[in-house]
Amino acid sequence: MTAEKAIRVGLGERSYDILIGSGLLSAAGESLLRAIPNAKRCFIVSNPTVFSLYGQSLTRSLELAKLSCNHMLIPDGEQYKSWDTLNGILTQMLTEKYDRRCVIIALGGGVVGDIAGLAAALFQRGVAFMQIPTTLLAQVDSSVGGKVAVNHPLGKNMIGAFHQPKCVLIDTDTLVTLPDRELSAGLAEVVKYGLIGDFAFFEWVERNAAALRRCEPVAIEHAIRFSCAAKAAVVAADETEQGVRAHLNFGHTFAHAIEAGLGYGVWLHGEAVGAGMIAAAALSARFGCLSDEDVVRTRDVIGSLGCPTELPALGAERYWSLMQLDKKNDWSGARAQGCSS
Amino acid sequence: MTAEKAIRVGLGERSYDILIGSGLLSAAGESLLRAIPNAKRCFIVSNPTVFSLYGQSLTRSLELAKLSCNHMLIPDGEQYKSWDTLNGILTQMLTEKYDRRCVIIALGGGVVGDIAGLAAALFQRGVAFMQIPTTLLAQVDSSVGGKVAVNHPLGKNMIGAFHQPKCVLIDTDTLVTLPDRELSAGLAEVVKYGLIGDFAFFEWVERNAAALRRCEPVAIEHAIRFSCAAKAAVVAADETEQGVRAHLNFGHTFAHAIEAGLGYGVWLHGEAVGAGMIAAAALSARFGCLSDEDVVRTRDVIGSLGCPTELPALGAERYWSLMQLDKKNDWSGARAQGCSS
Repeated sequence: MTAEKAIRVGLGERSYDILIGSGLLSAAGESLLRAIPNAKRCFIVSNPTVFSLYGQSLTRSLELAKLSCNHMLIPDGEQYKSWDTLNGILTQMLTEKYDRRCVIIALGGGVVGDIAGLAAALFQRGVAFMQIPTTLLAQVDSSVGGKVAVNHPLGKNMIGAFHQPKCVLIDTDTLVTLPDRELSAGLAEVVKYGLIGDFAFFEWVERNAAALRRCEPVAIEHAIRFSCAAKAAVVAADETEQGVRAHLNFGHTFAHAIEAGLGYGVWLHGEAVGAGMIAAAALSARFGCLSDEDVVRTRDVIGSLGCPTELPALGAERYWSLMQLDKKNDWSGARAQGCSS
Repeated sequence: MTAEKAIRVGLGERSYDILIGSGLLSAAGESLLRAIPNAKRCFIVSNPTVFSLYGQSLTRSLELAKLSCNHMLIPDGEQYKSWDTLNGILTQMLTEKYDRRCVIIALGGGVVGDIAGLAAALFQRGVAFMQIPTTLLAQVDSSVGGKVAVNHPLGKNMIGAFHQPKCVLIDTDTLVTLPDRELSAGLAEVVKYGLIGDFAFFEWVERNAAALRRCEPVAIEHAIRFSCAAKAAVVAADETEQGVRAHLNFGHTFAHAIEAGLGYGVWLHGEAVGAGMIAAAALSARFGCLSDEDVVRTRDVIGSLGCPTELPALGAERYWSLMQLDKKNDWSGARAQGCSS
């Protein structure tokens, strides 16, 4: 187990650590107790694939720390991030007589993290919550910052809350079993942190694209660490997205249009963000805020990470109508960010 | 319209005013704009009885303030404070294309306030919320402090959040149409503020019981004002009930046992709190923390306000098992408060 410095998300009494390294899962119980000293009973939310790989290691480490735990598995896929699944989690916890002192642990990707986090926000008006993200996308984005939600038939993430975890534990070993396509999708979100705030990091990603695609430990850990630090800083400055946090939505107006237009799940979220950022960069260039060369470099790096670089052909009119529906329509962000990168 | 000083709930950037007086409803639009200057679209949640009495006055005042509004009526009764009703509110708002800048207004009693508040907490991760309580119980208790929830078949208020309103508007004229029994139940919660913190106020209630039961304007406004100020102070000190806010639960462990034991709705919540406080006072006397005379005075004042003073005969064993289930079991509070009053 590596023991590098944790990244602190500074939110006053809601501050918490992001732990990043190899082998952390087997000491998750200890980490949980450090973050939540009075923890007793845990409830793990996961999906069958992830739980079959990492469930035993997690439950063993909780038992070693004298924490009791049950678990509930939800099927994989955005369509299960629903009102009904959420009710199922809350009902099972009430049936098993969990009380306000319990801890909900999310073990999995963004779907699991989002729904488990919303369950934690709502169960008896809020209980402690720990994120153990096992996809790169969740590790560098959704597990940090407390945005939790379920989907509604009329829109993605329309029902949700801000509920910060007490701890985020990122065991980089879990990426070994991640399908290549999901790794690439996560790397597109990594590129975002370069584009919105740190050109040197963007250039580092350019140089290390091959190593990142091979999931080489040193490179991937650096990418995660940089991304989490960048996100932590933004979240600390603007927890509930009144201002600067909207910059994290760079590329997301296009991305949501792609996902909604094709049907959720056809493209991975990270893939849509990658192509969305290229489109947003091209738009910024038209406003004169970005050079054509920067647009080319953006496209090239996304492509070299294994993600699609062209928007799917939905037609301009359809894009326009889909993008007007987006609740975080980010035209202003696209312009501002285009100018600053 | 009276224009007495508002009571401020001091919660940093989540601070808000409680406006109390006669005739305030007809100026609700102005009050809303003072609290939420950028408001545009409002969504009123109410029930058929209350809306038929006060809906027109409210919507007219919103229109005068150039605010657009739709409404949704939910049936009266705790059984409709449910997961399904909540989904219905969120779905209607999405269907009508409300966005994050909207304001949800609760017009009604505790059921309406709790469910509308939870809808506001969850809709697109949280929107602005205004409470216009029309029962005495909601005016002196549930509308202040941001506790919002729905019931679950396995327990009352088991799914919820802390989501503070931007403004609480208490128009004392709405009490004119309140059934006597509901007025009495609300007065039992008023007595609570005397018992937990201010013996002089308790004595004032003793002297003014008859006027309060007749809903005489000067007396009732004083009672509401004192109760809201007391609650505001407790909420400001302990927003999420980590400590002192639990004192507000005085009598509530017995009350929840009464309500659950008889079936919700057989006794009104305030009636159960009244009898619960008498039982808690008697218990405190047994611990030597309260004199027998104080127990008698507690019983007498509850009775003089028109509430039942004897616990329903469920049997000691049933009480014991019901009270152990209560999520805010308040033995320690009962003892501490018994000693201090």
